Amino acid sequence: MAPSLTLLTDLYELTMMQGYLLGGTRMRAVFEMFFRSNPFQGGYAVFAGLAPLVEELISLRFTDDDIGYLRGLRVFEPSFLEYLSTFRFNGDLQAVDEGTVVFPNEPLVRIEGDIVESQFIESMLLNIVNFQTLIATKSSRMYHAARGGSILEFGLRRAQGVNGALAAARAAFIGGASATSNVLAGKEFGIPVAGTMAHSWVMAFPDERQAFREFARRYPDRCILLVDTIDTLGSGLPNAISVFRELGGRISVRGIRLDSGDLEYLSKRARAMLDDAGMTDVKIVVSNELDEQIITHLVAQNAPIDSWGVGTHLVTAKGDPSLTGVYKLVARERNGAMEPVIKVSNSIEKSTNPGRKNIARFYNGDNIMMADLIVIDHKGGDPALSAAERGEAITLHHPIHANIKSRLEGYARHELLLKPVIRAGSVCTDLPNLSRTRDAAIANLAQLDETHKRFINPHVYKVSLSDALRRLKDEIVSRHAVLK
Amino acid sequence: MAPSLTLLTDLYELTMMQGYLLGGTRMRAVFEMFFRSNPFQGGYAVFAGLAPLVEELISLRFTDDDIGYLRGLRVFEPSFLEYLSTFRFNGDLQAVDEGTVVFPNEPLVRIEGDIVESQFIESMLLNIVNFQTLIATKSSRMYHAARGGSILEFGLRRAQGVNGALAAARAAFIGGASATSNVLAGKEFGIPVAGTMAHSWVMAFPDERQAFREFARRYPDRCILLVDTIDTLGSGLPNAISVFRELGGRISVRGIRLDSGDLEYLSKRARAMLDDAGMTDVKIVVSNELDEQIITHLVAQNAPIDSWGVGTHLVTAKGDPSLTGVYKLVARERNGAMEPVIKVSNSIEKSTNPGRKNIARFYNGDNIMMADLIVIDHKGGDPALSAAERGEAITLHHPIHANIKSRLEGYARHELLLKPVIRAGSVCTDLPNLSRTRDAAIANLAQLDETHKRFINPHVYKVSLSDALRRLKDEIVSRHAVLK
Repeated sequence: MAPSLTLLTDLYELTMMQGYLLGGTRMRAVFEMFFRSNPFQGGYAVFAGLAPLVEELISLRFTDDDIGYLRGLRVFEPSFLEYLSTFRFNGDLQAVDEGTVVFPNEPLVRIEGDIVESQFIESMLLNIVNFQTLIATKSSRMYHAARGGSILEFGLRRAQGVNGALAAARAAFIGGASATSNVLAGKEFGIPVAGTMAHSWVMAFPDERQAFREFARRYPDRCILLVDTIDTLGSGLPNAISVFRELGGRISVRGIRLDSGDLEYLSKRARAMLDDAGMTDVKIVVSNELDEQIITHLVAQNAPIDSWGVGTHLVTAKGDPSLTGVYKLVARERNGAMEPVIKVSNSIEKSTNPGRKNIARFYNGDNIMMADLIVIDHKGGDPALSAAERGEAITLHHPIHANIKSRLEGYARHELLLKPVIRAGSVCTDLPNLSRTRDAAIANLAQLDETHKRFINPHVYKVSLSDALRRLKDEIVSRHAVLK
Repeated sequence: MAPSLTLLTDLYELTMMQGYLLGGTRMRAVFEMFFRSNPFQGGYAVFAGLAPLVEELISLRFTDDDIGYLRGLRVFEPSFLEYLSTFRFNGDLQAVDEGTVVFPNEPLVRIEGDIVESQFIESMLLNIVNFQTLIATKSSRMYHAARGGSILEFGLRRAQGVNGALAAARAAFIGGASATSNVLAGKEFGIPVAGTMAHSWVMAFPDERQAFREFARRYPDRCILLVDTIDTLGSGLPNAISVFRELGGRISVRGIRLDSGDLEYLSKRARAMLDDAGMTDVKIVVSNELDEQIITHLVAQNAPIDSWGVGTHLVTAKGDPSLTGVYKLVARERNGAMEPVIKVSNSIEKSTNPGRKNIARFYNGDNIMMADLIVIDHKGGDPALSAAERGEAITLHHPIHANIKSRLEGYARHELLLKPVIRAGSVCTDLPNLSRTRDAAIANLAQLDETHKRFINPHVYKVSLSDALRRLKDEIVSRHAVLK
């Protein structure tokens, strides 16, 4: 059940790897991972998946078993299999911090190394980063919608597989969820675990009140009663109130969960019944196919809901079940020097940005994000960064259309988002624990203007190319155009 | 990286388990897993996930590490943790065969055992079966749409996590895919692996022709050239044809892959160019955000496509990223006898069918499926089965609405779909290997009338309740109604 994940790759990565190696076309190469549009038609994404990616990269090993399997495919030469048996990832990795708010076309992970190793890791890198970024983003949207209410991740049973559940629990926590129902995720990642009871608990007893009483006695410090098995207002609420009254002060944390019906109507009626009984401390938890739109509308209607149990639509990323992240070659060695390259596509939107790059993020005096600038990160650096150091106006070029530009002035500070994480195969920085990553994500979200956080037609956050990058791209595109 | 999966459960399963155990409410219980509506607004689903589920169930063990973690939560009593340390799944499992065409409201997996163990496994069971059934169904739809063309599963990079990719590869193969790009899935499950080349291969060489030549020399028996890096018809095709001509008979399997642009236009133009060059054997593989609808339309337009590389939309189940499978208590011990139970919901559609059940499937003389009947599987059996043995007309009751019924006559044979798989914790049958499961799925799909396989408004396949089950349900519902 616990295979080495080194073979978690597409076959073509290995055939290309062998081709480069045996064909003598080894060279240094730079790849960058980015996505082309925000998920959920939203205004931003929350980057996640870095720590698990790093863990996999530094432990990549082809076991004898792996090599035996590959030999059996009759695609690989003995000398290549020999090479794999001692393979290690010896490249560099730069990345933005997990939990950072990011945008389309920005390089989020940059790999530099031998083309053999940097090509090989593509599928694994995309698998991990695409999914965790997708779920952290979904969770962030729900967190934002709940306006202070807590988000509980209950998605295990409908997640896309075992790891779909585990990785989702991790990413959901980064994005702002407070707890998970998934015990294994709690153990592996230190996420707080939470839960209530199932309808089957109520059905296993002769009557509902007895089921509630038994649960309340057993769990006085986490007594959330599920009140909709028979009839929410006619049976569940009266029985819950009766048991709460009967056991009184012996129950320290008490609440009810609504899992069906009209949640606005039922939560308001339940709140009134509880308050009438003097039980203003009893929390109301709701669940049942919730998403950020439903949460938004219930919050707007002042439904008295304290916690939101979200499952399926969080962990499977309702509306957009995949992030369109890609991993593209941006520079390669030629005649001993690194040369920027580009994939010129028939559609101009799909042309990549050439060369090794970084992101400069500019903030105003209130610490609110103003704009991001994609800059060249070659030796010598990008002149836009020197200008930024001097506080001068910066030219912002549209990422796709060559003639659209604007100027950025009045910024208070800027920072570079891509930072070294692995150098020559060794981790060169301390990655924060998950709880600090979650805090950072929540803090970063607060630096993003509200207009970018709208779910409908969000204001587009400006991500631009620097003068130097725009020129480089134009040069390479026109060279290709001549070749055609 | 390889935790025991025993803790892959929702916290409430463990708290309820402790409640039953310490509260002295242990009893025998029967749970059934079913789903309420077909995914993708389709007419059927393909059941999958049984073998991985069985593997997990029989190897459930709480490690010392697991118990240490649970102790730290301060929710569980020492005596309960002691119990967990020797916990094994000792129940029974009955299920339909993997690869079987199934429908809403049918019991697909039935667990019988102590309520403590049968409750505990809920989350894991649903996680595995929901996802694999969802993907096997999606794959089956694509297989059906391709009308003989082959489906290649290329979804690793955008799958929902590591296991989202692995489990998806397995389920996609069951549903009809011919191969996967995922090497680890190939190794773990024995699925054929396939792949071509990435754009980065072409970009790593000074020009496209050289990139193609190098690849063709290296892989003459799997030479699929990706022709859209620069200009599909202006550069990719001419270069591919030139390299195929140059190397001639040294290439034994040759093809091109189109990954962008209008696939009907490009495949037709490419076919003509290849045929004009005398290369009628060169296969055309396409990819790029394909789903069953796009495949249907391209096939209808006679696009000359041999293989369909499908990724994201297969492994993330575009349109319906989760199956709504649930796991419900249907009977429990009371005063020494098993008593059928029901969850009466405010919505009649959500009321469950009581009691231990099986599915009888009826076929006509051409071996085409006519109807399914959900029958009671208590001691004494369901009278409808005796009637079926005698070839008599069978009354079919609508699964939800009490007064709608019809008669089934003229069937040639019937069979029971749920079969024993685990008895008292031990596997009691030989599960078929994956390749035989795939054959069975394809054969079963052929027994389903074409009208049920339409993607738009499919003809609803009839799943009914037997006389005895209908009566039992009515009795229990009316008893509940009186209680209110």
